[in-house]
Amino acid sequence: MSVRVAVAGASGYAGGELLRLLLAHPGVEIGALTGNSNAGQRLGSLQPHLVPLAERVLEATTADVLAGHDVVFLALPHGQSAAVAEQLGPEVLVVDMGADHRLADAADWERFYGSPHAGTWPYGLPELPGGRAALEGSKRIAVPGCYPTAVSLALVPAYTAGLAEAEAVIVAASGTSGAGKAAKPHLLGSEVMGSMSPYGVGGTHRHTPEMIQNLSAAAGERVSVSFTPTLAPMPRGILATCSAKARPGVTAESVRAAYQKAFADEPFVRLLPEGQWPATASVYGSNAVQIQVAYDEAAGRIIAISAIDNLTKGTAGGALQSMNIALGLDESTGLTTIGVAP
Amino acid sequence: MSVRVAVAGASGYAGGELLRLLLAHPGVEIGALTGNSNAGQRLGSLQPHLVPLAERVLEATTADVLAGHDVVFLALPHGQSAAVAEQLGPEVLVVDMGADHRLADAADWERFYGSPHAGTWPYGLPELPGGRAALEGSKRIAVPGCYPTAVSLALVPAYTAGLAEAEAVIVAASGTSGAGKAAKPHLLGSEVMGSMSPYGVGGTHRHTPEMIQNLSAAAGERVSVSFTPTLAPMPRGILATCSAKARPGVTAESVRAAYQKAFADEPFVRLLPEGQWPATASVYGSNAVQIQVAYDEAAGRIIAISAIDNLTKGTAGGALQSMNIALGLDESTGLTTIGVAP
Amino acid sequence: MSVRVAVAGASGYAGGELLRLLLAHPGVEIGALTGNSNAGQRLGSLQPHLVPLAERVLEATTADVLAGHDVVFLALPHGQSAAVAEQLGPEVLVVDMGADHRLADAADWERFYGSPHAGTWPYGLPELPGGRAALEGSKRIAVPGCYPTAVSLALVPAYTAGLAEAEAVIVAASGTSGAGKAAKPHLLGSEVMGSMSPYGVGGTHRHTPEMIQNLSAAAGERVSVSFTPTLAPMPRGILATCSAKARPGVTAESVRAAYQKAFADEPFVRLLPEGQWPATASVYGSNAVQIQVAYDEAAGRIIAISAIDNLTKGTAGGALQSMNIALGLDESTGLTTIGVAP
Amino acid sequence: MSVRVAVAGASGYAGGELLRLLLAHPGVEIGALTGNSNAGQRLGSLQPHLVPLAERVLEATTADVLAGHDVVFLALPHGQSAAVAEQLGPEVLVVDMGADHRLADAADWERFYGSPHAGTWPYGLPELPGGRAALEGSKRIAVPGCYPTAVSLALVPAYTAGLAEAEAVIVAASGTSGAGKAAKPHLLGSEVMGSMSPYGVGGTHRHTPEMIQNLSAAAGERVSVSFTPTLAPMPRGILATCSAKARPGVTAESVRAAYQKAFADEPFVRLLPEGQWPATASVYGSNAVQIQVAYDEAAGRIIAISAIDNLTKGTAGGALQSMNIALGLDESTGLTTIGVAP
Repeated sequence: MSVRVAVAGASGYAGGELLRLLLAHPGVEIGALTGNSNAGQRLGSLQPHLVPLAERVLEATTADVLAGHDVVFLALPHGQSAAVAEQLGPEVLVVDMGADHRLADAADWERFYGSPHAGTWPYGLPELPGGRAALEGSKRIAVPGCYPTAVSLALVPAYTAGLAEAEAVIVAASGTSGAGKAAKPHLLGSEVMGSMSPYGVGGTHRHTPEMIQNLSAAAGERVSVSFTPTLAPMPRGILATCSAKARPGVTAESVRAAYQKAFADEPFVRLLPEGQWPATASVYGSNAVQIQVAYDEAAGRIIAISAIDNLTKGTAGGALQSMNIALGLDESTGLTTIGVAP
Repeated sequence: MSVRVAVAGASGYAGGELLRLLLAHPGVEIGALTGNSNAGQRLGSLQPHLVPLAERVLEATTADVLAGHDVVFLALPHGQSAAVAEQLGPEVLVVDMGADHRLADAADWERFYGSPHAGTWPYGLPELPGGRAALEGSKRIAVPGCYPTAVSLALVPAYTAGLAEAEAVIVAASGTSGAGKAAKPHLLGSEVMGSMSPYGVGGTHRHTPEMIQNLSAAAGERVSVSFTPTLAPMPRGILATCSAKARPGVTAESVRAAYQKAFADEPFVRLLPEGQWPATASVYGSNAVQIQVAYDEAAGRIIAISAIDNLTKGTAGGALQSMNIALGLDESTGLTTIGVAP
Repeated sequence: MSVRVAVAGASGYAGGELLRLLLAHPGVEIGALTGNSNAGQRLGSLQPHLVPLAERVLEATTADVLAGHDVVFLALPHGQSAAVAEQLGPEVLVVDMGADHRLADAADWERFYGSPHAGTWPYGLPELPGGRAALEGSKRIAVPGCYPTAVSLALVPAYTAGLAEAEAVIVAASGTSGAGKAAKPHLLGSEVMGSMSPYGVGGTHRHTPEMIQNLSAAAGERVSVSFTPTLAPMPRGILATCSAKARPGVTAESVRAAYQKAFADEPFVRLLPEGQWPATASVYGSNAVQIQVAYDEAAGRIIAISAIDNLTKGTAGGALQSMNIALGLDESTGLTTIGVAP
Repeated sequence: MSVRVAVAGASGYAGGELLRLLLAHPGVEIGALTGNSNAGQRLGSLQPHLVPLAERVLEATTADVLAGHDVVFLALPHGQSAAVAEQLGPEVLVVDMGADHRLADAADWERFYGSPHAGTWPYGLPELPGGRAALEGSKRIAVPGCYPTAVSLALVPAYTAGLAEAEAVIVAASGTSGAGKAAKPHLLGSEVMGSMSPYGVGGTHRHTPEMIQNLSAAAGERVSVSFTPTLAPMPRGILATCSAKARPGVTAESVRAAYQKAFADEPFVRLLPEGQWPATASVYGSNAVQIQVAYDEAAGRIIAISAIDNLTKGTAGGALQSMNIALGLDESTGLTTIGVAP
C-alpha cells in the first residue's frame, strides 16, 4: 500500500533532493511534479542525476495538478506556500519546505519576511522535546530551516538541561546549495570557489527568529542569539559552531552527560566519541547529524558543533522523516545515516 | 537468506565505498573487516561517514580472519591480492578490487607492474559483449580499473560496430580519491584545489594495457591507445573524453544508432539525449554511467564522453554489480542510478 | 612619461584582471573605466579585490568617454568591439580582448559567430613565429582566445619542426572564469564544484577555427583539429592536453630538441625539466606558460601539455604583453612568471 | 643598495610565499635558501610556481649557510627558531615566522607548546597601537600567527575604544595551507574538498594565548577568548568572525567611528563601506586586510569580521612589512593591497 506523493517545486535543489530520497522510499509512489518557469520541461534536463525520472515532464503548480495525492510537498519560494496549501483539502498531508508556517510569532514573521503571517503548523524537528508527538497524525508540517535544524540540535540539550546562559553566539558555514538554484552573480562558481564570506550579519538573517524560538522553548526563557552565517566553497553541508556561557557549576562531565541523554535514542543524531569532531563530509547526502560538545573552562563557555547536509537533514530528509512520523511509518524509512565520502 | 561478506582493506577509499554500498544491500551480512596498519582501530575514526559500523574494530588481513565468509572482497594495494586469494577456498567468491587479475597478457602485467603475473580472472564489466556470461556462477572476479571502466564503455560500441579506426586518443580527468588515501604531498588539498595537472603521460599509466585489451577485443584487432590521465580538483568522478578516427561511411546517425543499440538494455548506462553532455556531478555516489557521443565531420572523428563515479561504478559499485551476477541475484540490488547532486 | 589607458568593460573578469595588472605596471596611468549595465557603480562593489580603484565610478562605454587616451582596451562581448574601435582615431592603440579581429577568414568568422566579419588585426601572440614583428608599432591588436593561446604554444613547435601529422586532438580543461561573469545556472558554484563536464564538443567551440589558423600557419598545410573543452571546478587556469601523430623518424630526442629551440629565448614560456608536468596552480595569476612534451612510441603520438592562467596569459596578461611590444616597452613590464601558489 | 636576504625553510608554504614576495621587492637580493629534508633538491621541483628560482638548490639549515646576510627569515617548525637565531649575530635582522618569540608569558608558552620559552621579540603587527614604533630599527621580529593577525585587527579597535566587554567569541575559517605542507591524511584533497570541520576546539589551539595577549593589551584588562578554528575547503584565506558584548551606551555610529579612526591611515587595512562584507577571495595573494563591523542591537553584540590571506598578511607579507619598517624602507615596498580574483 503505497502513498501517492506530489512535489511542487521539483526543479530546485530542495525539490530535487526530495525526489532523490523519495525514489529510495519503498512506501511512496511519485505523482505530479510541478515547476513554475520550468513547466513543460523534461526533468532529465533540469535534474540530470535523477535518471529514473528523466522523462517526466514538469507541470504547472496548480491546485488541479496537485489534487488527488495523499501527500503534497511544497518546495516553493518563501511566501508562496500558504496560497497553494489553502486549496488542498484537510485530508491531504501538506509538508511545507518553505518558511511560511515555521514561526509562532506573527510579528517576527512580518518583520523578517515583510508579508502577512500565514499561521503556524506543527514543526518538523522530531528531535526537539515533544517534537514527535506534535507530528504524529498531523496533516500539516512546517519543515524547519536548515540553519535552525543544525543550531537547535546543537544547543537545545544545553538549554534543556539548564547548563547555559540565555545568550547564544552562533557562526555557521553553509554550502552554496543553501542559496538555491537562482542564478546570481555572487553565487557563480568563479566567485565562491576559494572564498569564505559572511552575509546576513547582525541578526538580519531570516533564520534568526526561528532559532530564538527553538532555543527559548528549551530554555524556558527568552534566549538572545547572535547569528552569523557564512558561505563556504562547497555545494552542500552546514557546520554550525554554537556557544553559550556556562552556568555556575557546569563541568565537562555534566555537559557530556546532558548530550548523551538527549540523543541516546535518536536514530539520526550521532554524538561523536570524545576527541572526534564533526565534518560536513561525513554527512554528505545523509540524514545524519553529527555533534560534538566541549566545555572551555578558561573561557567559561559550552561549545557545541553540529554538521548536517543542508539539503538532506536540513531540508528534504527532515521533511521525509516528519512525513514518516505523520503517516505512522517507521521514522527512518527511505533515510540513511550513511554519508557519501570522501 | 543472507550472504556473509568480508572486506579486506576496509580503511581505504575503495573499501569504505564498498561498505557504504553493502550497508544498503538487503542480501548481505557484513562480516570481518580488515586493515593493515589500521588493524585494531575503530572504523568510526577512519570512516566517520559509516555511522552504523562506527564501533566495528578492524582486524588484521589474514586467512583466518577472512575464513568462513561466502564472499571476500579484496581492496588491497596492487600485487597483494593473489597471495591472500590463494588461501581462500574455491567455494568462496573472491572479488579482487585491485589490478592483479585483470590482464590476460602476462608480459603486459610484468611490464607495467614489475612483478610475476598472478593469472587472469573473469572480468567484472558486465556491459562488455559477453560480459555477463563470464561472471555468472564465477567464484573469482577481477574488478576493472576505474579509467578502463569509463573508457571501455565510451568506446566499445564504436569498435564493436566497426565505426572507428584502431587508434584511440583518450584524455580523462579523475577526482583525487582515485589516488587513494595514502598521504602524499602532491595530493594535499592545498595542492589540488584550484589545479588541474596530468600524470602518467605517454602511455605509462598502468591502466593503459587494460584499455587496449578491452578495445582490441571489441575491434577484433589491436587498438593503439594514447591515454593521458589528469588530476581534477574534486574528490570523486571520472570524465573520459575519448575519440577515434571514423571509418569511411560513418555518419552521425550510424554512430548514434550503434550506441543506442549497445546500451538499450543496460540498467546502469544512460546514453543522454542529443545535445546533453555528461557531468561527473550527475553520477556522484551512483553506479550510473552517463555517456554522449558525437561525430565531428570536419575533424573526421567520433568523440565519446563518459562520466562515472570512480569509487562507485569505477570500483566498489562495479564490484557489487558483478557479485550480484555471480551469485544469481538481481544485478541492480543495492545499487542506484541516482546521483547525489548538486 | 606615462601612457594613458582606458578600459572598456571594466566590470567583467577580463577587465578586472587587466586592471589588476595595469595597477602594477609602472608606465601606465589608468584613465576611463567603462561598463555597460554597471555604469554609475563604484568599482569597489564590483571588483572588491582592486582596492586602489575602489572609489572609481564606471562610466558608459562611449567614444567620448574613451577619447583622449593613448591606449584603449576593449574587454567587450564578442561582436561589440568593431563598432567602438571605428570611433577611435588611428593614433590610438586599440587592444581588442574580444574575438572580433582574430580570424583571417571571413567565412570562418561568419560560420562561428553569425555576424559580418570586422576584419583582421595583428595577432597578439608574440611567441608565434614572426609574432613580435607583427606587433611592433602596431596600433591595432587582436588578443588571442584563451584556449588558442594554450594550444598554439603547445603544438606550434611540433608543426614548425615538421614532426607531426596534420591532425591534432585536443582536450582542454578550463576554470570557470573563462565563461565570464554573467549569471547562468550551469555556472553556479553548486553546479560546478565537484564536477567536470564537456561543452562545445565536436568542433562547435568558437576557438576551433582560431586554433586551426595558428597550427596550419606553423605546419604550412591545413591542420584538422578535434577540440573538446571541459569545465573544471576551479576559478582559473587552462590545462591543454594536445597530441598529434608523429611523422616517421621522430624520436623523443628530436621532439625535445624542437621544443627547447622554440622556447629558448621566450621570457614567459617555461619548458619544464623532463619528468615534471605542468599544473595550473603553478601559473595562477602569472603570465607564464608551463609546457611539457613527450613522445609516446607505442601509440606513435607526440603529447604536448600546457598550463596557463586563462585570465592572465590567456587574456589580460597577453594583452598587456602585446601592448608593451607595440609601444616599444620592455615586453615583460608589469608582468611576472611567478604564480600564486598553493 | 640592496639588502641580502636568506630564507630558512624555503620548501614550505610560508617560505615559498615569502620568496614569491621577495622576488617582487626591489630592494632585496635573494641569498641562501635552506631546507631540511629537502636540502639538495632544486627549488623548481618543490615550488614550481617560483620560475625565476627554479634552478636554485636548497642548502642545509646551518649557521654557516645563513651567515653573511643582512636579513634572515626563519620559516621553521615551531620550537626550532631559537636555536638557529642564537647563532646569528646581533647585527643581522632575524625575522622569526614561527611561534617561538611571540608570547610574553613564559607559562603560556610552556602550557601550549611544551618546551622552554625562548624569549619575546618585538611583535610584527604594525597596525597595533604602538606597533610600528616597536619595530623601527629592531634586529629581531616575531611574526604574528595568522589567526591572531586576523582576529586582533578585527577586535582591537573595539577594545581600544572601550566599546566591548572583556569576553570575545571567535570562529575563524582557514584555508588548508595554514596547516602546512606536511602530508597528513586528514589534509588530503579528497578529505578537505567539500568539507568544513573544526579543530583545536575549546581553547586548545596554540594561537589562543596570542589573541588574549593582543586583545588584553588593547583593553587594558584580561580578555577571555573562546576561539574555534575551522578548516575550509580552499587553499588560502582566513575569515575571522569575532564578536563581543557591547558595553552600555554603544551605538552603531560609535562602533563605526572607532573603526574608521583606527584604520584611517593604515595602508593595508580596508574598512569596507557599510553593507559590504569581506570575502577571502578579495585578498587572495595580497597583504590587505578587509574588515567590516556591525552592532547587533537585539543580541547586544559587536560583530567584526576580517578577511586576510593567511600566507600573505597572515605570514610572509606581514613578515616583509615588518622587515621594511625595521630597515627604514617604505612599509609597502614589495607588497600590494590588490588581490588575485576571481
